[in-house]
Amino acid sequence: MRPNIVLFGDSITQESFRSGGWGASLADTYSRKADVVLRGYGGYNTRWALFLLHHLFPLGSTKPPVATTIFLGANDAALAGRTSERQHVPVEEYKENLRKIVRHLKECSPTMLIVLITPPPIDEEGRMEYARETYGEKAMTLPERTNETTGVYAKGCIELAGELGVRSINLWSKMQETDGWQKKYLRDGLHLTAEGNAVVFEEVVKVFKEAWLDASEMAYDFPHHSEIDGKNPEKAFQQKCL
Amino acid sequence: MRPNIVLFGDSITQESFRSGGWGASLADTYSRKADVVLRGYGGYNTRWALFLLHHLFPLGSTKPPVATTIFLGANDAALAGRTSERQHVPVEEYKENLRKIVRHLKECSPTMLIVLITPPPIDEEGRMEYARETYGEKAMTLPERTNETTGVYAKGCIELAGELGVRSINLWSKMQETDGWQKKYLRDGLHLTAEGNAVVFEEVVKVFKEAWLDASEMAYDFPHHSEIDGKNPEKAFQQKCL
Repeated sequence: MRPNIVLFGDSITQESFRSGGWGASLADTYSRKADVVLRGYGGYNTRWALFLLHHLFPLGSTKPPVATTIFLGANDAALAGRTSERQHVPVEEYKENLRKIVRHLKECSPTMLIVLITPPPIDEEGRMEYARETYGEKAMTLPERTNETTGVYAKGCIELAGELGVRSINLWSKMQETDGWQKKYLRDGLHLTAEGNAVVFEEVVKVFKEAWLDASEMAYDFPHHSEIDGKNPEKAFQQKCL
Repeated sequence: MRPNIVLFGDSITQESFRSGGWGASLADTYSRKADVVLRGYGGYNTRWALFLLHHLFPLGSTKPPVATTIFLGANDAALAGRTSERQHVPVEEYKENLRKIVRHLKECSPTMLIVLITPPPIDEEGRMEYARETYGEKAMTLPERTNETTGVYAKGCIELAGELGVRSINLWSKMQETDGWQKKYLRDGLHLTAEGNAVVFEEVVKVFKEAWLDASEMAYDFPHHSEIDGKNPEKAFQQKCL
């Protein structure tokens, strides 16, 4: 009955229903209008995400999502030869994988609103602090992600969105427009604070609204309680759902 | 693929995905294991909820929810002859309506985990303050809900759960065990603060766990990223989903 909005991505999507999370805020905004479906896979890169594609978005579904956010790249951009090397995917392959994901979604539904989101910027100092707190003396001495390299992936993501004609959010650039973004938006140099979540939420709502998925213009699934006549409730429901 | 957990209720369910909300916390807890589906209808009583039943829970669905929380009664308990009279439903009818809802859900799926939640207690002073702030001089001079009357509905809800053999949470009693519950758990005498949301979340998780829906014992839908071999990712996915 209600349309589905799918959030597909890595840990930044998976944890988006924690307190103040961007996913939960979206579910609240679209409450009684669309269902927000959480498909976040912590630690995943685009190479691994491809294995899930046909399971999460089966071709021939009678109810494909009306909108999907694709929020991947933070793990692809982990550096080769450093502690998170296992997750590294070269930028050209990252773009190619995103292209496959977008093509598959368009095949699922040519009208699906697809939004590519770049990884957030990296606060290298924050990553090192987090590693020292977590691993002590065994912590890495060289960063496993750099802001510069993640920026290359962000650029690739935006270029690809332009090429494929889908919408995009350059979170990497957007967050860096604000002074002190390193601690304001990132809690461990990579994952989002409540304020960082608020930025993602605002940007996604803006893009959805600019397209055609504006919550304020969507009808409630059933009558608002103020439309229900206490003495004759059938009337409101006859109009809306019988 | 993933099972659905449906949250069916009034405004206290509808707003459960706001920051710190109990619904969002459940979605986070069951992330990658079950989908939490929001079906909250602000202002609704059980009489009006009946109109939605066959739409939200169609008989013969191939994928009925594995669990449903039914969290209604706060509006039924609005007093006759006061400002929220339109929402009032007599307690005997409230119980009968809940009985119809539970019977319908059991018909949808005899194995469904059904949890009845009583309305929270009422802080009458808080309701009056809220009314004065919202309506000024036009505010009600007599409370539209009392804690005592809501307690009668809570008692009816718990009795019915026992009679029908479904699980229940006596939120009305539980919250009043804590000193200062009036302001600690209720933000306007009726709706929940973040701490009030935490109580509901903890109680629901406890009941789910005591039944058979323990998130910590449920498998992830796809491999955890640590199980994926960077050089041979196929292997993990072949075992889990091919």
